[in-house]
Formats: sequence, structure tokens, C-alpha cells
Amino acid sequence: GNALLSSYGTTIFEVMSRLSEEHGAINLGQGFPDDRGPADVLQTAADALLTGWNQYPSMMGTPDLRQALAAHAGRFYGLDVDWKTETMVTSGATEALTACLLGLINPGDEVVLFQPMYDSYLPIVRLAGGVPRFVSLKAPDWSFSRADLEAAFSPRTKLVLINDPLNPAAKVFDRAELELIAEFVQRHDALAVCDEVYEHIVFDGRRHIPLMTLPGMRDRCLKIGSAGKTFSLTGWKVGYVTAAPHLLQPVAKAHQFLTFTTPPNLQAAVAYGLGKEEGYFTGLAAGLQAKRDRLSAGLASVGFDVLPSAGTYFVAADISRFGFDGDDQAFCRWLVAEAKVAAIPVSAFFVENAPTNVVRFCFSKKDEVLDTAIGRLRDRF
Amino acid sequence: GNALLSSYGTTIFEVMSRLSEEHGAINLGQGFPDDRGPADVLQTAADALLTGWNQYPSMMGTPDLRQALAAHAGRFYGLDVDWKTETMVTSGATEALTACLLGLINPGDEVVLFQPMYDSYLPIVRLAGGVPRFVSLKAPDWSFSRADLEAAFSPRTKLVLINDPLNPAAKVFDRAELELIAEFVQRHDALAVCDEVYEHIVFDGRRHIPLMTLPGMRDRCLKIGSAGKTFSLTGWKVGYVTAAPHLLQPVAKAHQFLTFTTPPNLQAAVAYGLGKEEGYFTGLAAGLQAKRDRLSAGLASVGFDVLPSAGTYFVAADISRFGFDGDDQAFCRWLVAEAKVAAIPVSAFFVENAPTNVVRFCFSKKDEVLDTAIGRLRDRF
Ligand SMILES: CSCCC(=O)C(=O)O
Ligand SMILES: CSCCC(=O)C(=O)O
Repeated sequence: GNALLSSYGTTIFEVMSRLSEEHGAINLGQGFPDDRGPADVLQTAADALLTGWNQYPSMMGTPDLRQALAAHAGRFYGLDVDWKTETMVTSGATEALTACLLGLINPGDEVVLFQPMYDSYLPIVRLAGGVPRFVSLKAPDWSFSRADLEAAFSPRTKLVLINDPLNPAAKVFDRAELELIAEFVQRHDALAVCDEVYEHIVFDGRRHIPLMTLPGMRDRCLKIGSAGKTFSLTGWKVGYVTAAPHLLQPVAKAHQFLTFTTPPNLQAAVAYGLGKEEGYFTGLAAGLQAKRDRLSAGLASVGFDVLPSAGTYFVAADISRFGFDGDDQAFCRWLVAEAKVAAIPVSAFFVENAPTNVVRFCFSKKDEVLDTAIGRLRDRF
Repeated sequence: GNALLSSYGTTIFEVMSRLSEEHGAINLGQGFPDDRGPADVLQTAADALLTGWNQYPSMMGTPDLRQALAAHAGRFYGLDVDWKTETMVTSGATEALTACLLGLINPGDEVVLFQPMYDSYLPIVRLAGGVPRFVSLKAPDWSFSRADLEAAFSPRTKLVLINDPLNPAAKVFDRAELELIAEFVQRHDALAVCDEVYEHIVFDGRRHIPLMTLPGMRDRCLKIGSAGKTFSLTGWKVGYVTAAPHLLQPVAKAHQFLTFTTPPNLQAAVAYGLGKEEGYFTGLAAGLQAKRDRLSAGLASVGFDVLPSAGTYFVAADISRFGFDGDDQAFCRWLVAEAKVAAIPVSAFFVENAPTNVVRFCFSKKDEVLDTAIGRLRDRF
């Protein structure tokens, strides 16, 4: 017998990063930036390390960071959040998500999941005893219909898990789509766990709309954010959950047994960072938008059919024309070994009905790195 | 319905720390030191933050820290550990423990737990579908017999969870006790998850003996350590697991969905710290031994029946004579509010047959703090 969690494979992100290193490839697989992150945020973390508290902070997070989270929710989304009862800090968004699912799902509860989905969702839903119901989004536009939701929701639906902006599809849900989801959540008296780690990484003048801000949704949503993504410091593993007290309380009970708490000096720096001026946040998105354009143009120039990217670190591309017989995994293995460029097969984000002709590239890299990667691809195609 | 994890209360450590703060008490409840930790380790972390990598490291941990863990196991315990296949870094020992239990336990497996036990053990065993079987250690000597193990082990035993040195009993298992446990583990073809976070905090010339070093146990044990405890930096949340490859692999599968990875600058500093000269480790224990003596003498002087403490941050004391009717929880609530000293009721570490006349005090505090606490107690008793 195999314990449930150990029956899954090693996450595709780690697998491709290891292969990338082995082959001396440029790693456009796992999603992380290759710059240093904001110098003032780093300095704040170093100062807090050398002069501040390095023992257990409160399991809910430091007051400074929790207040900053509430202020951030007000400033960007007009949300009125009570930091003392509605915010919690976690050791990364992965832990936040696991705590939400383990804290809320009862055995037999149905959980609506949108495919493609991040690879930790399903194992944790299953660990909690949840029964997954899938809505499959289809490339190239990754849309869904009322009928898709009708088929997935039922009287046993406990919650829907939504990742917006959506990795790997680089889709940003529009208001009409969110309204449709909100309608179903309310009709079924359900909840929504909202993985919004890319909330500040949306392009072309779009604005991210937290599902929590829709009418009737304030007390049905758990909003997850990530300092790693917002400050380009993915190794820091500082995440957060914002939710009404009656939802946050059970989630905190799970959190205390997963990690209990998160390094206080990193929390201090993230608290500082969340208060940065508007220009920081718009600059982050603008910088990544330029990189999206650079990589998309490069991929197109070497023959990929590039899909639109409205947000996240990623752009997906159709590989049908390269003749790998609809095997995105084989394509990625070939690419990392022969072209020395790592990418992620999008089929890894599906449980059923996976497209096999789409791969994901990460563009949150230095321009030279993106250019070198394109050069390598050009040499092979 | 309540999700399993959310049916538990908030951890007693957080509850008492909050009460301590509300009452302006001296916090001898939750276990953490109040000094700054080693300056060179802090500086290494700050340097790594400002000049090193702050993106995702490998999910298994940084090569530097993993090599340091293997070297540490060789240097202190004569263990031959392959860092590439036998070490993993986690976001604190709490996560390490949760990953071990979720990675190894199949529904229906029996798990032998020694009471008193840390309060995250049972919820996670249950989450994994494990069936707990308890061995109850009894104050004042916290011993157990062959018959106790006969009663707890069965053909369905998957693993035993042992905390050595043992919080809150401040017991260090001796070789004969470990041999008895090893005999049962081997006879039942079982495993041992060894929570050894206080491995370097043992007193009076004792040496901690990892269960893993006993004959036949090398490939049956998962050894958990904690940088927080070894470097007096409990807020850092850097833990680690050492185990044979076939045991570590399933645990890594769980880890990837709990936190995935741990801040690389803290890993760099812990790697450095583990290489410190012998004097650092002996000094840590000697310093805490002196504090144990200081607090024990103070508690005795105000009328507590102090139990022996062979290791950990803690000393337990019998409160029968104070007439709280065998209610250690009521005693602790009274103590924090009236004497303004926080302690932990030891009954919180039991599921059944709890003693109700023992409380735990943490002595890893500045001498002035310990003295002030004793002064406050003297004023009330
Ligand atoms: C577990 S690594 C996560 C990286 C990431 O979010 C991604 O590449 O999609
Ligand atoms: C979850 S806080 C842990 C502190 C501790 O180990 C203890 O006080 O026993």
C-alpha cells in the first residue's frame, strides 16, 4: 500500500528544473524570475534579521504584515478587511492552499476544479477526502460555459478552487466569467478558494478582479496571495490568506499543524513591500509584459503558434506543427536535451482530456536569457 | 460537518502565548529562547539574502545544507549519510513531521505514540488515516515497560513516533529503552519517525542516542532535526529529515504539496551553523543546563515539586500542593492572570489518562527574566 500523497509523481516543475540543470539548459520551465527582487525589500529583510525578532511569531503572522495585507486589500480592491480576524500568513501559497483545503473539506464533499490546474490541487483535495469534479478549459481560448458549470456543481459541492490569473493558461478571468462562477457558488451555498498569486501580474491594461469583490461573495471566498510572486522572491515562501473569520478559523487549525508559522524577518520585509507606491506594482506588470512580448515574438519567429498571455509568468504555445505526434512530454524532453531549453508540458496540469499539443514557457527572465533561448531554438528548428 | 483538522483546538502554545501577552506576563509557556542566536549564523543569513539566490531552491533543500546535514550526522553520530538520497530540508520540524506521517501512513495502519506527546502528532496521524495506539509514560520518571510495548504493537503497526529528548517530560531515552523500542520495531517490521529536535540540548554529560544508530535501525528510522532549536532561532522554521532513500522518497512526495521548499538564505546560514566547532554545541547545552538549574532551584524555593529535566528547554513541576484540585489547566490560567507567569499544562500533551497535576516551564530565557518570574511566583505563593 502507498500513502495517498506518495502515490503521486515528483512535481513536474522540480523534474524539469533537474533535467534543465543536467543538460545545461536555459530553464524556461519552473516559474521564477531571475532578477534579484527589489533592493529595498531585501534590505528590510536583512535589517530585520540582524536587529529584529527571530523566534516564533504568532501562528497567524506578524501584526505588521497582517495590517499590511488588510491595507493592500483596501487599496487595490476596495475590500474592508479586519486584519485581526481575516488575515493569516503562511509558508508560501502552496501551504496556504493546502491549509484551506484541509481546513474546509469534509470527506465526501465535492470540489469543483478547473483544468488546467496547478499540480498540488488534486492530491490535497483527495487527502481531505474531497471528490473532484472537473471543468475543462480548452485551448486556445480557455473558455467555459454555463453548461460546464451545471455539469460540475451539485448539491454536494463544498467549494470551487479557482486560479486567476490562471497558470499555465495565462488566462485572466473576465467579469462575466467571474459572475457566472459567483452565481453557481451562491446557488449551491458553496465556497471559493481563490489562488490569486499572480494578482499583480496582468497585462495590457487589464485589472485583476478578486472573486471576493463580487456581490454576495465577500464571505464565501478565501483569497490566497504570494509575496514570492508579488516581489519576485519565489524562494521566500511567504503566502497569505484573506477570508471572513468563520472561514479563516478552520483554515488556521490546519495551518498550525502544517508549518505553524513563517520567518518573522521575511514577514517584516513583505509588510514593507506591500506598502510600496503604485509605481512598483504597475512597474512589475509592465516589465513582465515587455518580456512576454519579447519571448512571444521570439517563439513565433522560430515557428511556434503562440497563444495569448493575459497575465502570469507564462506563455503557452501550440507545438502541433513540430510533429511530436501530440506528445508534449516527449517534446519537452527532446527540447531540454537537444535545444537546451526547458519548458513545461501543459498536459501535466490535466487529469483527464489533456491537450497534448501545448507547452508552457516562462518569460520572467533577463532579456539576454530569453534571447539566448530563442537563439537555441532557432538553431534546432 | 467539520474537516478533521479544524475539529482540534488552537495549539496550547499559541493560546498561552496570547494569554501571556494579554496579561503582561513573563512567557515561560511556549518553548523558545529569548536571546538573539549566534551572531555569525545571523550574519551568514543576511549576507545570503543580500548577495545570494532568493528564488526556489530544489524542493529537497540546497546542496550546501544537505551536505552539512550528512556531515553533521557523521560527526556526531557516526552515521554514513548520502546527502543526495538521504536528506531533505523542510519548513520547520512541524512540516517534517507532517510530511513523514502523510508520506508513510496508509489508512488503517496502526501508529504507536508515546504520551505525553506534542500536540500536532495525533491530528496528522488521524488525517493520514492512521489508528493511534498509545503508550502512556507516567510522571515522575516517565518510564515504560516491555508489557506497555506488547500492548501497543500489533501486526498492523506501521510505525512508532518517538520524541527524544521528550517535550514536555524533559526525558532523554537511555540505551536500554531505545533497544527495547528497536526490538519491537524490528519484530513488527515497522518504522520509527524520530522527532529529535532537541538532539543538542541534553544535560549532565548525557549524550543523545539517535534511534537510527541502533543495530538494525539504520534503514527503519526517519530522523527529524530542527535548526530553530539547534541555533536558538525558532522563528526560522528550518527543519530536516534524514532517512534511507526508500523512506525519504515517499516523504518528499508529501513535502512537495505542503510547502515545496524553504528560504535559501536561511538554508545557507544553517549549513554554515552545522559546521561550527564542537564548542558551540556543548556551549548551547551547558548554557541551557545552567538555566535549568536556575529555574528549577527557583521553582523549588517557592514550593513547587520540581521533576528532573535531562534535556529540552523545559522543566516540569508537580502542582498538587497548590490545591487546584488536580486541574493543571485552571492552575495555568490562574498563574498567567494572577502571578503574571505563563506555563503549559502537561495534560495538553495527553489524549487519555492525563496527569492533571503537572505543569511545564520553559527555562530558555535570560537569567533576569527567570529571576523576575521566580520573584512574581514568590509574591503569590
Ligand atoms: C512548485 S514550483 C512552482 C513554480 C510554479 O508556480 C510554476 O512553475 O507553475
Ligand atoms: C508550535 S510552538 C512550539 C513550541 C514548542 O515546541 C513547545 O512549546 O513545546
